[in-house]
Amino acid sequence: MRKVGQAARSAARILALAPAPAKNAALEAMAKAILANEAAILAANAQDVADAVARGQIASYVDRLTLDEKRVAGIAAAIREVAAQPDPVGRVLASWTRPNGLEFERVSTPLGVVGVIFESRPNVLADAGALCLKAGNASILRGGSESFRTCAEIAKALRAGLQAAGLPEAAIQMVPTADRAAVGAMLAGLDGNLDVLVPRGGRNLVSRVQAEARVPVFAHLEGVNHTYVHAGASLDMAVAVVLNAKMRRTGVCGATETLLVDQAVAPVFLKPLVKALLEAGCEVRGDSRTLSVDPHVKPADDTDWATEYLDAIISVKVVSGLDAALAHIERYGSHHTDAIVTDDEAAAQRFLAEVDSAIVLHNASTQFADGGEFGFGGEIGIATGRMHARGPVGAEQLCSFKYRVKGQGTVRP
Amino acid sequence: MRKVGQAARSAARILALAPAPAKNAALEAMAKAILANEAAILAANAQDVADAVARGQIASYVDRLTLDEKRVAGIAAAIREVAAQPDPVGRVLASWTRPNGLEFERVSTPLGVVGVIFESRPNVLADAGALCLKAGNASILRGGSESFRTCAEIAKALRAGLQAAGLPEAAIQMVPTADRAAVGAMLAGLDGNLDVLVPRGGRNLVSRVQAEARVPVFAHLEGVNHTYVHAGASLDMAVAVVLNAKMRRTGVCGATETLLVDQAVAPVFLKPLVKALLEAGCEVRGDSRTLSVDPHVKPADDTDWATEYLDAIISVKVVSGLDAALAHIERYGSHHTDAIVTDDEAAAQRFLAEVDSAIVLHNASTQFADGGEFGFGGEIGIATGRMHARGPVGAEQLCSFKYRVKGQGTVRP
Repeated sequence: MRKVGQAARSAARILALAPAPAKNAALEAMAKAILANEAAILAANAQDVADAVARGQIASYVDRLTLDEKRVAGIAAAIREVAAQPDPVGRVLASWTRPNGLEFERVSTPLGVVGVIFESRPNVLADAGALCLKAGNASILRGGSESFRTCAEIAKALRAGLQAAGLPEAAIQMVPTADRAAVGAMLAGLDGNLDVLVPRGGRNLVSRVQAEARVPVFAHLEGVNHTYVHAGASLDMAVAVVLNAKMRRTGVCGATETLLVDQAVAPVFLKPLVKALLEAGCEVRGDSRTLSVDPHVKPADDTDWATEYLDAIISVKVVSGLDAALAHIERYGSHHTDAIVTDDEAAAQRFLAEVDSAIVLHNASTQFADGGEFGFGGEIGIATGRMHARGPVGAEQLCSFKYRVKGQGTVRP
Repeated sequence: MRKVGQAARSAARILALAPAPAKNAALEAMAKAILANEAAILAANAQDVADAVARGQIASYVDRLTLDEKRVAGIAAAIREVAAQPDPVGRVLASWTRPNGLEFERVSTPLGVVGVIFESRPNVLADAGALCLKAGNASILRGGSESFRTCAEIAKALRAGLQAAGLPEAAIQMVPTADRAAVGAMLAGLDGNLDVLVPRGGRNLVSRVQAEARVPVFAHLEGVNHTYVHAGASLDMAVAVVLNAKMRRTGVCGATETLLVDQAVAPVFLKPLVKALLEAGCEVRGDSRTLSVDPHVKPADDTDWATEYLDAIISVKVVSGLDAALAHIERYGSHHTDAIVTDDEAAAQRFLAEVDSAIVLHNASTQFADGGEFGFGGEIGIATGRMHARGPVGAEQLCSFKYRVKGQGTVRP
């Protein structure tokens, strides 16, 4: 792993100065190589999937692991979408001139070396490698043993792309899973050759990385997300937004886990909201008010308000107003993604200002918590920390900056 | 310390929503209180200074510790300068609309709770507290025992300012130095109630914080800064810039420690550059070429190129050209501040692009590495890390951001 780190640092120095066309040519060549190697990728994946089935893994796990022709095409398309983004390096983020004539520019630069530790979904290898490359960063990618064969084939295609564009192959390195000490070495920062770590996977993985990493981490532990139906909401919009926020896909980190309904509209709204959820196949766990509107509602206990179900289950609570909704979200939320549904602009402004989450939405589904939906062409993850990156982390947030200062022989008095 | 952390977090929630006029009113009241309490501050400082002298501290140490009427006025003026800055919170950093009609805004927010561990200079307490307040952050400030009495008097004035503006007193907390476990608790992150740590002081303090902190750190370990006199430089400008970069103040982190002279101009420039430095009272340690131009030059060994003298000493080397200068800076530098002197625009562009330092300058003194000189109204420190903040850290970099998203009942397909 020491050599992996050193090779990544050397590659990062070259990537930092690589012009945008070279990086985009590599990305395009990668996409082509992914499609050209489709048969080999699918064959390797079939072996990984067979092993997972033999180990008795559950269907959702096997589904995350499985590739088919459409998903392979999706991997290539995602790489091309990253290539199509504006170059995030070398942007002048701010510029100003001081009274002494010094001209200042804050200019975006790559971060350096990005480590990713991921589970199950083999496409993370390509997504993360492509985004890091776009931002001029070298990446060190460590997948789980369950996707090892698939990832090895994808990594081949990525290397072919780098080679085709004349960029160093160490720009995207896949760590052999057989190396048990690899994760520990990455957590320790690879002798200063790793600048940031991104864990992608289950709670256990993320919490271990957050607890043990000696380098900065971009991550979210969970998304206990809320949709608050305010007194000023219309019922139709509330039902549409809540249904989508909870049920579009229940396993994503942007799914709503708790519905808060303002008591001013609860007498009219609560019953149809609960009915719509139940009819969509969602289990509803409610407070006493919610229990009273439908016999199928189960009682929520205090742990429900802090639970990320990642499943077709929702907790529902009637709150006395905006202040109570804000207090509930502050107490039980995870600072990930929260939404208000209302036609009352003042209430929406307060909600957007006062909810301390990475993403706050007004009259929109929490399921938009996704770098692609933000227009970032992908994401390496979603961060709930306040340092450097927050929310979906795309190529732009995979950059740092530096100051360029120009004088005319200017000296300081 | 647990209570200090909890109180800071509560205060931070209030500060995050405090309007700019309230924060500025507090800062103005603090400046007034500093001036009104001048006698008490100076009396406390006299005791601290007497103790330091009795302990046999060296003159530069005692000087850093000592306040007089002018320095107290400077503390108040610095607070007012922070107040005069534009409010860094609530700025729309970016905004865009997606094809589905969703409107996105990236908006600056406070970071949360900032910890500062500092030594000697008591003005750091006021500077750091004021900058953090401006950015809507609570601060926990821990000075050394040598300035305890002075800091306690300054802290009183800061609390009076907060009180006058109706802001929570826990917004700026000074940690009693008697609490020996305080630094350890801050390094551990105060149970999640500390978001970032800033060490201000000597190498030992900074390296300990960097090694042991479990929260992000804004810091620089050292400033091994270079001024490179390129083949395209004019001699007059080179002499003026180098003299200022080295000798204006030798103890600051932006001081130049190594002079690189291009061999193309060395036959003409080296002698007058060395002469000017020697005449200004600077010790010159040179490579063989430099030794040959003046008998007062001492030989530099390999440790000199990596040494931050913080004194009237400079190392001087003749390099074969721009590439050699870049390689030297990459090998021996500390990614802090580096400058090129040249009239050759293309060479300057390469230097500014390829030197991987927080601050890169063209035809200007490295002594401009300072938040005040950047127009930030002050700085909490200078960072050489690549995460979040880099270079002088002012109120703007003491902010995070979040995404505000507005839809029209928008759901994700």
